Amino acid sequence: MFDLRAYLKAKQQRVNDALRRLWDNTEPHPTLLVQAMRYSLEAEGKRLRPILCIAASEAVGGSDTDVMPGACALEFIHTYSLIHDDLPALDDDDLRRGKPTCHKAFDEATAVLTGDALLTAAFEVLSAAGRHQGDDALKWLEVIYLIAKAAGHFGMIEGQMMDLASEGKRITLKELEAIHRLKTGALIEVSVRTGAMLGGGSHEQIDALAAYGRHIGLAFQVTDDILDIEGNIEDLGKSPGSDQVHQKATYPSLMGLDQSRAHARELIEKASEELRNFDTKAEPLIALSRYIIERKR
Amino acid sequence: MFDLRAYLKAKQQRVNDALRRLWDNTEPHPTLLVQAMRYSLEAEGKRLRPILCIAASEAVGGSDTDVMPGACALEFIHTYSLIHDDLPALDDDDLRRGKPTCHKAFDEATAVLTGDALLTAAFEVLSAAGRHQGDDALKWLEVIYLIAKAAGHFGMIEGQMMDLASEGKRITLKELEAIHRLKTGALIEVSVRTGAMLGGGSHEQIDALAAYGRHIGLAFQVTDDILDIEGNIEDLGKSPGSDQVHQKATYPSLMGLDQSRAHARELIEKASEELRNFDTKAEPLIALSRYIIERKR
Repeated sequence: MFDLRAYLKAKQQRVNDALRRLWDNTEPHPTLLVQAMRYSLEAEGKRLRPILCIAASEAVGGSDTDVMPGACALEFIHTYSLIHDDLPALDDDDLRRGKPTCHKAFDEATAVLTGDALLTAAFEVLSAAGRHQGDDALKWLEVIYLIAKAAGHFGMIEGQMMDLASEGKRITLKELEAIHRLKTGALIEVSVRTGAMLGGGSHEQIDALAAYGRHIGLAFQVTDDILDIEGNIEDLGKSPGSDQVHQKATYPSLMGLDQSRAHARELIEKASEELRNFDTKAEPLIALSRYIIERKR
Repeated sequence: MFDLRAYLKAKQQRVNDALRRLWDNTEPHPTLLVQAMRYSLEAEGKRLRPILCIAASEAVGGSDTDVMPGACALEFIHTYSLIHDDLPALDDDDLRRGKPTCHKAFDEATAVLTGDALLTAAFEVLSAAGRHQGDDALKWLEVIYLIAKAAGHFGMIEGQMMDLASEGKRITLKELEAIHRLKTGALIEVSVRTGAMLGGGSHEQIDALAAYGRHIGLAFQVTDDILDIEGNIEDLGKSPGSDQVHQKATYPSLMGLDQSRAHARELIEKASEELRNFDTKAEPLIALSRYIIERKR
């Protein structure tokens, strides 16, 4: 029986080590900016996107080393998006990953620039990795392109715009799904897709894994909405109930809690189906999809 | 005699056309985010960084087509940095390029996300260009890497952090120079350097042009400081006197106006010297260096 707990712990360690190594080149007395970048990165994140990237690479026979720069870049982008989302002008949150948000621990100007720096660093890390790959240069360029698209103005950032615009409005389930497919789904999907690409997957494998990523990306958000109602501050590392504060439509508010849970389970089943042609190397992905809807934070 | 006015006009047109083409793929009814990106991009910028990139390519025998995606990406990055710098939590400016700043024309949340989207789009454009270059993929990866570094946490963003930290403090000329080398110098230098690389310059040519870029980058900022005292709102498209409002040390405040002018001229002479082994194709760069210290905005 596959031990997800041990797998998560081992991979979180690998990712945290890699993230830390990226900062080893910095001065012994880091600038305030680097301190703020570290502060936000070193918070106890789940490292879900990097781990999905690694697990997708492994599912097609690649290793975690193949994808580690990509995995770190995805965590940089995720972390920057949290820092900017938490700003007073956006969601105005004080707590994140169990610690004061970046603009609370530092100040607002520093938080804006720290987010900018992490986003920029993501592309520095990706291109630095690609430069040393010789023959694989084109593949890395493709990865940079796909990640920029997923994180950009028709991807994650547009999702955030739509999310802000929807506050206090009645929206349909279809509109809610569209928001979430962009806001969280796009980056989760591209994490799986680029992991499969860098791990050396075939076109069919990459497409199947990307479809898996789309399903779990949505399941992740449905679960987030449920946790915002049922979760507690200790597990979540942030205050629950923020959807209500911001008058945001959620899956539970539109289809009820039980239906939301059923919907998340359905999505996870669809995700598993996409993996039917994979061997046991895809076990972590199956377990991860279950974890996504069973997690407490 | 080289006609810089005509050259600037022609190249601004080329850059503006290229920037506009990048938006042609968007919906007939652009999202609010795309509207805000366009609003900030379509303001009457000098397009200095893209034009330097083009002129450097031409100086080594390349064309403007070779470098246009790089030129546009540099303008995206410059524009994003202005949007975020203008935010209330940073410089809190209301006017930019003769129009209300992004957070004034839209709102603060939109301005944060619009800056994020432009920064991300820069890397999308660069990687999209590189994907279609086959043999030149490695060169584009190198360009992405250099631009990310110049724009990042040891480049432009660190310069912005240092600039904010220096407000109201006594700093030395050396410290002021260090701030400006990062805040504006790094992106100007990398504009010239990547133009020379993508235009097919030799290592010696690239190094000489990068040195040229370093000198004019600093000269640009010395002139900016002078214009903040002597300029007027119509020419500048923003309010002069903002350095005094923010209690920022400037070249004129540290060395006086006359000395500052002389310093800018010295830097421009040094920049020209770097071009001594180039032929007439480098004439635009010589003229641009003079323009940088003689401009009114």
